[in-house]
Amino acid sequence: VATSDGGVAIGVDVGGTKALGALVDTQGAVLTTHVVPTPAEGEPLLDAIAGLIVELAPAGRELLGVGVGVPGLVDGAGVLRFAPNLPEIVGLGVTAGLRRRLPDGVLPAPARLVADNDANCAGAAELGFGTAAAESDVVVVTLGTGIGGAIIAGGTLVRGANGFAGEIGHMIVQFGGEPCQCGKRGCWERYASGSALGRFAREAAAAGRVPGILAAAGGDVDAIKGEHVTEAAAAGNDEAVALFDELAFFLAQGLANLAAALDPGLFVLGGGMIRAGEALLEPTNRCFATLLEGAEHRPIPGIVGARFGYLAGAIGAAALALGVGAAE
Amino acid sequence: VATSDGGVAIGVDVGGTKALGALVDTQGAVLTTHVVPTPAEGEPLLDAIAGLIVELAPAGRELLGVGVGVPGLVDGAGVLRFAPNLPEIVGLGVTAGLRRRLPDGVLPAPARLVADNDANCAGAAELGFGTAAAESDVVVVTLGTGIGGAIIAGGTLVRGANGFAGEIGHMIVQFGGEPCQCGKRGCWERYASGSALGRFAREAAAAGRVPGILAAAGGDVDAIKGEHVTEAAAAGNDEAVALFDELAFFLAQGLANLAAALDPGLFVLGGGMIRAGEALLEPTNRCFATLLEGAEHRPIPGIVGARFGYLAGAIGAAALALGVGAAE
Repeated sequence: VATSDGGVAIGVDVGGTKALGALVDTQGAVLTTHVVPTPAEGEPLLDAIAGLIVELAPAGRELLGVGVGVPGLVDGAGVLRFAPNLPEIVGLGVTAGLRRRLPDGVLPAPARLVADNDANCAGAAELGFGTAAAESDVVVVTLGTGIGGAIIAGGTLVRGANGFAGEIGHMIVQFGGEPCQCGKRGCWERYASGSALGRFAREAAAAGRVPGILAAAGGDVDAIKGEHVTEAAAAGNDEAVALFDELAFFLAQGLANLAAALDPGLFVLGGGMIRAGEALLEPTNRCFATLLEGAEHRPIPGIVGARFGYLAGAIGAAALALGVGAAE
Repeated sequence: VATSDGGVAIGVDVGGTKALGALVDTQGAVLTTHVVPTPAEGEPLLDAIAGLIVELAPAGRELLGVGVGVPGLVDGAGVLRFAPNLPEIVGLGVTAGLRRRLPDGVLPAPARLVADNDANCAGAAELGFGTAAAESDVVVVTLGTGIGGAIIAGGTLVRGANGFAGEIGHMIVQFGGEPCQCGKRGCWERYASGSALGRFAREAAAAGRVPGILAAAGGDVDAIKGEHVTEAAAAGNDEAVALFDELAFFLAQGLANLAAALDPGLFVLGGGMIRAGEALLEPTNRCFATLLEGAEHRPIPGIVGARFGYLAGAIGAAALALGVGAAE
């Protein structure tokens, strides 16, 4: 039996394809994690999240709270109003649905249960425990199936009039461009997310340019996903590095747009794609410096990896449940 | 001799083509204005602003402060670092240069002298005295020769790490699009500013589609400017209304981008172009509603005219000098 040495929180980061739960202490350290696939519909999704929470519930330590990050617009009442990458899910009461599902005793009475946008969670992690802790103005960009964001201005997480701020992946960078699941065309995330990376890789594979990545995906062009490229880049594969170079151009354009609007002192990149490390960061910093308005007349903000890598969303969901890193 | 009935401030709004000075009371009421052309170089520009201040200096009332709004990146020391629409001007010490030029006694010792981005000034006017006073999250968009912006989040003017936030006109909305004076391509202000309106009108005139506007510009296609279209639209001219319909599509795309990032409860449009009134606002609201992400799942923010119309920048510069509407 584990001894009680301080309270803990559970954070769950729901992505477009998988949900990652983490048991986190009050210093932001991850004690254990668990991953399940993301169901496409609301009730099965709540079942899966509840299952993760039960799986992670600590035996001998006090559970101080549970936070859930979901990939879409979450209002102040914990309702997921709309999720572009989970189109079947609309108006899902996340916190209410979880309360109904959790067995007695899993979540003790004083413990907090909160839901927020997954990218706001990633921002809260960096603000509370990570790379953003020393900066007043930061944009945290989460690069996964789509692109999410958390905007910190003057030390505060910007939430907007309805709590929906930070949906930066749906800023249009190309009039009439690639169709997006949100219904618009030319959204940034169609050019600079993990799905965009997968598309670039499939195009390159069809043209015979990336035989190694094609082999890693079992020789089937249509089976290539962004993750194959990210893993290959992390291992130093040249084909993958070239694809990240292509993606960095589009990523940097969107970051330059955010710099024009918000003048952050730092960009923090998180999400699954950051596992590519310098293959992502080096070309992005290089392109960004050529695009920043008035770059010769101002400091150029750094673009760095999130401290917590792909765990940032889960740690930040836990941080919000702990009351750390939240606005106000 | 005017009796002393309360202190006043002077606000100067420097645009790409003209500089407008206003004498303003502590309630935001404009007592008098004066306009001069904007010189393209730094020292003559400071001479012109100093001349405006002397012209407007009140005879019988206490001058509490002078604020100057300039169209570019202004740092915390009152230095205009870079102005995309005034490319000759770099590193101009605005407040220091004005102090040297103002005759003794014009600016009494306790009076404040401040310089800020012109669009931040417009935001301060609306935040202090205008349409933004009741909202916590607002984007004020200034439509003139270029596009400027002021972002208010959680009731505070967002200034960024260097004071350069709000340069929303230089967000790229079209990869490889129209060249911009900032050195990039495809900036939003190339599609939705007064200069863009002038370009659309010249193209339409060359194609024989806007004979009335062509006549108003003396029959010379190259002489058509955005102002001709704005004045014609304000007078209900159908040709001008159709051109605003064209521009509104591009304007709304950029506003939807800002809504995705910032989730404001209200957009306030200012600058010279707002004189077109409903010819600008109606099609912009209509297009915006079709572009807002998840529009059926959230309140749709209104897009309204600035309370102070084309005077907002000058009133806001005065407001900042009065300590009204500033952040912190």
